[in-house]
Amino acid sequence: MSKLRFRISVSLDGFVAGPSQSVQQPLGIGGEQLHEWVVALEIWRRAHGKKDGEVNVSTAVVEQELANIGATIMGRNMFGGHPGPWSDTDPWNGWWGRNPPFHHPVFVLTHHAREPLMMEGGTSFTFVTDGIESALEQARRAAGGQDVALAGGARAAQQYLNAGLVDEMQLHLVPTLLGGGERLFDNVGDLHGLGLVETVAAPNVTHLKFASISE
Amino acid sequence: MSKLRFRISVSLDGFVAGPSQSVQQPLGIGGEQLHEWVVALEIWRRAHGKKDGEVNVSTAVVEQELANIGATIMGRNMFGGHPGPWSDTDPWNGWWGRNPPFHHPVFVLTHHAREPLMMEGGTSFTFVTDGIESALEQARRAAGGQDVALAGGARAAQQYLNAGLVDEMQLHLVPTLLGGGERLFDNVGDLHGLGLVETVAAPNVTHLKFASISE
Repeated sequence: MSKLRFRISVSLDGFVAGPSQSVQQPLGIGGEQLHEWVVALEIWRRAHGKKDGEVNVSTAVVEQELANIGATIMGRNMFGGHPGPWSDTDPWNGWWGRNPPFHHPVFVLTHHAREPLMMEGGTSFTFVTDGIESALEQARRAAGGQDVALAGGARAAQQYLNAGLVDEMQLHLVPTLLGGGERLFDNVGDLHGLGLVETVAAPNVTHLKFASISE
Repeated sequence: MSKLRFRISVSLDGFVAGPSQSVQQPLGIGGEQLHEWVVALEIWRRAHGKKDGEVNVSTAVVEQELANIGATIMGRNMFGGHPGPWSDTDPWNGWWGRNPPFHHPVFVLTHHAREPLMMEGGTSFTFVTDGIESALEQARRAAGGQDVALAGGARAAQQYLNAGLVDEMQLHLVPTLLGGGERLFDNVGDLHGLGLVETVAAPNVTHLKFASISE
């Protein structure tokens, strides 16, 4: 069966966003530090229509992360921080612009129903209101045999981790402190059989890959 | 000047001890998992008068950690979890037994004055009641040009980190969740110029070394 592969950048003190998150500051105070390692990469810049950028050991990690992904699941805040309820005339289509970098179906966990959005470049956003298992089932179907990415945020991740539904977890550990914000592992406490299988040291980040291990 | 070198084992969710710490269970529920990587090592077992044990990439990390240390600073809980106040007739000499594994002067941060303890094998415990800077000054003097180890626990570490007095920080990141307990970086939020300088992947642990870096 296709795997559910979760990946996220997290600070040394366990936050995936800094304090005082808002629509104006979606990553909270200092939260951009979590993504400096990736936005500097040539592979990331190319995917976002930009030139130049670095090639280093993180490049292969990102390549592997993007490979064989046929659909993505994300929480509502990651889609766009809109408080909802949606309306069909709502101009708000998330953070991601007209041509989002996914190029495959994206399933957004929300309590507010909304018609799917078809974007340029092959990305669609489908809004799922009946829970994480329904979203995973729809995403697996849409992925057509490929894997499903779980892109965050923290609350979506916590739900899938606690349900034991995550097959692979790639943490991008950024060696900085945020001092507050959204904690990745709040109310988790159990990795449900996921164990560390690979560590990659890279500039400004340590990549820690977890997968199901025999107990 | 001699360096203050902090080292501690920490869970993936940022705890240095599990929930429900007590004199009976000083590391809290599940906290022993944080030390499984080290107690399995031949170098650790030998230092504690035991035979056999593993040799792996963590061995060199532990060797470096022990090298050139002339004194150790620790918090009261790490000395022995005694609620205090001490008394000279108190039979309680901490967790460490008659021949503790330090073999050099140890300075214990406490609010309760007590006469120094001279143990077998060259370890002494001196109880410091006038704060972290005094303890560091006394430890540096006792270390005779060698470095000073800061052994924990979390509260002692937080005080030294917030004062910007830590020159080196070695985190032994254990890929497990404790779900609660004593958080290493509570109320810190700033590494005061410490940056990641070395990552070592080892069985059941990832060693992350931080040192002062030019900004």
